[in-house]
This record gives sequence, structure tokens and C-alpha cells, in this order.
Amino acid sequence: MNVLLVFAHPEPRSLSAALRDVAVQELEAAGHDVRVSDLYAMGWKAQVDRADFPALGTDARLLPAAASRNAFATGTLTADVQAEIAKLLWADALILQFPLWWFAMPAILKGWVDRVYAYGFAYGVGEHSDRRWGDRYGEGSLAGRRAMLIVTAGGWAEHYGPRGVNGPIDDLLFPINHGILYYPGYDVLPPFITYGTDRYDEASFAAAARQLRERMRIFAATAPIPYRRQNGGDYHIPTMELRAGLGAPGASGFALHRREGEE
Amino acid sequence: MNVLLVFAHPEPRSLSAALRDVAVQELEAAGHDVRVSDLYAMGWKAQVDRADFPALGTDARLLPAAASRNAFATGTLTADVQAEIAKLLWADALILQFPLWWFAMPAILKGWVDRVYAYGFAYGVGEHSDRRWGDRYGEGSLAGRRAMLIVTAGGWAEHYGPRGVNGPIDDLLFPINHGILYYPGYDVLPPFITYGTDRYDEASFAAAARQLRERMRIFAATAPIPYRRQNGGDYHIPTMELRAGLGAPGASGFALHRREGEE
Repeated sequence: MNVLLVFAHPEPRSLSAALRDVAVQELEAAGHDVRVSDLYAMGWKAQVDRADFPALGTDARLLPAAASRNAFATGTLTADVQAEIAKLLWADALILQFPLWWFAMPAILKGWVDRVYAYGFAYGVGEHSDRRWGDRYGEGSLAGRRAMLIVTAGGWAEHYGPRGVNGPIDDLLFPINHGILYYPGYDVLPPFITYGTDRYDEASFAAAARQLRERMRIFAATAPIPYRRQNGGDYHIPTMELRAGLGAPGASGFALHRREGEE
Repeated sequence: MNVLLVFAHPEPRSLSAALRDVAVQELEAAGHDVRVSDLYAMGWKAQVDRADFPALGTDARLLPAAASRNAFATGTLTADVQAEIAKLLWADALILQFPLWWFAMPAILKGWVDRVYAYGFAYGVGEHSDRRWGDRYGEGSLAGRRAMLIVTAGGWAEHYGPRGVNGPIDDLLFPINHGILYYPGYDVLPPFITYGTDRYDEASFAAAARQLRERMRIFAATAPIPYRRQNGGDYHIPTMELRAGLGAPGASGFALHRREGEE
């Protein structure tokens, strides 16, 4: 399996980088081919701006979705973005690894998503009709591939628990797992998360590395999060609201979009 | 009231910019002093990196939280970050305005948060004991001030509804409203959101502008989202888990952290 790991930490001697090396070694030991996009080392440009669309006229308004659609269709995206798209098409699996900063990904990684996820490639794909609403949420350019997050969090695990003050980690990561990975078609594996990284010692690292190695060993066989397919009949089209009667009793919010105990 | 509006769209002739101008005009008409941080116009640097910590030794490992703490304590943050912190301290209220890209803020705005929210200023503040766990979630450097989001979304409102496929908008924005605004102390007002901006016409703009003007007119009197104060007795310390019996019957996840119908 070809695996692309996109990595976002500014320090090569960080705990994050050490865990990245553990993941890469274990994936390679399992026979996978691994490529790493180390965004800081690459000097990745974070913000979407006019420079991303060299074919856009000097006086033209920059409407990001329209500019992205045109640039993808005409092959005029910048070379750095085209290279990342080529890596995504090479990869059977994508891993995003990042420290959780302010309950989200660091800006440089968000900028990788904002720039690489072109219109016509990651969104704006497929037919919109009374039968389907584009190829997204389980269908799309990256369908049939796997994706997974590796996340380091400075805070306590309990603070991210079901009743923890930060909110449950699975809900905090839903906009990424469902909104960024599942959207263009990936099967999304449960994330690997390690907490308390601000107070890590050698034993903490050894334990996290052991768990991460195990996740990498079973990577190809891990069952994905059972998100619902948008066009599979569960949602009204075009309002894309979940049909009455679906969803576990009492479930609301993000949890509705996972099949739980349904056939 | 002094209001800082942080704006993140690359096109000065965008719908976003037009709505920003509506908001600023209405706030000024109501007698408020308004400053705008237009991140693209300022050439804001998005990524946290070594250049943010000029006092960090060339060979020292960059540990972002430790470097931020030291730089804030010694007054060696970069001039651009210090200027934004000064604006936050000047402002009685903060508005973040952005287009929703991939269910989150654009990279350039995330980078404003990552860089301006220094350790000792926005986090790592206050006493940690068996009575309180720092000054955060309703307490902190920015307590007593108001904050609010202005969000433009390309998709349909129904897709962001209670059963919509994207997930409910209030949950998608929780990591920002609760995790970024409430965390350092702001009272967080309900967001202003306008949908379907990819297919806006003049009537849509007129309607959104009218609603936005009304929100700006009542800005100083709007009741904030009733998030729970971390140190008010609702949470166990130090695990910061909501005490049993609190939360509306059947509530889970993010909803637990709002007081609803409690005294």
C-alpha cells in the first residue's frame, strides 16, 4: 500500500517528529511504501491568495472556488499544489499528523487543505440531481482509499472525555474526519491520539510509540468509522437532511451521521 | 465600546468584504470605535515557526508553548504579534469574520490565533489548584469583553441544520466559539451566519446586510451563549469533567457545556 503522511510541526527534534518516525518505520516494516510531506521543511505556503492562480487576470476578482475550479480544469494550479495532488493520487492511504492547537490543526496544515483540495478534485465533483448531490461524503476522487489522523494534544485525556470541559475529542475532530477526509471519499480510520504531551517523559513516549506501532501494523485491516454515505438513501435530496427514523434513539448532532447498529 | 474586527478574505471586492463594510458602518453609527485587522491586506504570516521567537537560541529546540511563554514574559514576541495583542487589550469586543472553508476558518486566520494567543496571555494563565484550573473558559485575560463570529458559508443552510449532512453549524463552530473565544474569557454572542454565498444575488445580499445591521445595532445588548464557567463548581477539578446530574436530560457532547434551564 502507498501511504502519504502529511506532517505539520515546526521542530525536527519534537515529540511529534519522533512519533512520525515511529509510524513511518512501522509502516515500512509492514511492507508499505511511505512518502512524507513535511510542510515546515517544504516551506509550505499556508494562505490561499492570488499567487495560487497565475492564470487569473490581474484585474479579475479573486473568487476562491471559481478560481480553483478554473485552475484545476486548465492545469494551471501552482506546481506545489499539483505535486501534492499527484501524491494524493499515488497514495492508497493518507495520514495527517499534527499537534492539536486551539482544538484544530495548525495553520500550515489547514493551508495545505485549503490549497490542495481544489474544486473539481476534492469538491464540486459529480452529478447534482434528484438522485445524488455530487460525489462527496464517501464518494469522490479519493474514494476507496483510507485516511487517518495522528494527533498530539498537550492537555489531559479527561478534559477531552465524554463530559470533559473541552468537549469530546471525537466531536472536536469531526470537522476534520468527516468534513475534510470523508468528504472527498476517504474511508476514515479511528484517530490515534496521545494526550498530556506537555508533560511527557520517557515512559509516556514508550507507551505512545508502542500503541502507535500497533495501529500502524493493523492499518490496512482496521475498520473505518461507519459514516453514512450521502447518496445511499439515508438523506433527503437536495436538503441533505437525515431521514426521520434514522440515527440511534436519542442521538443528535454529529453522532447522527454514523451508522450504529443499523444494517 | 471599542471593537476589533479581524477579517480574513483575500479579495477586497468580495461579498465578505462588502458585509464587513456593512458591519463596520453600523457599529460606527451606533457610536462604537472600530478597528479592522485585514489579515490579507496586512500580509499576515500564518504559520508558527522559529521566526516568531527571535530570543530563542539558534540551536535550541522549538517547543511552541515554552517558546511562547518565554517570549510573552520577556516582551520578545515579534512586533506584528505584539500589535495584535495591544489591539485585543484596547478592544471591548472582538469580531472574527471569515468564509467557512472546509468547516473551519481559513489558514491565515487560524495562524492569527496560533500566533497571537500567546502563553501567559490567552492560555497558561492563573492558578492551578484543587479549587481552580487556571483562568480559562469564562475567566482569563479577556474576561468581561464580548466576541462574535461573522461567517459566510457557500453551502445550503439545510445542510448545516440539526440533521443536515455537514453537521449542525453550532457544533461545527463550537471549537471556535468555546475553544478559541470563551477559553481566554470572552462572553461569546451567537454567530451571524449567511449561507449559499456561492449563489448570492442582490436580494440575498440585501437581506443578509439587513440582518447583519440589526445584529450590529444590538451588539452591546445581545445575551451571550450561556457556556458554563470552568471554575464555578460545575466541573470536577482537576479532571474537568461535568458533575453528574448537570446538563439537560439526554444531552451529550458539546451541548453539556451550556447551561440550559439551570439557575
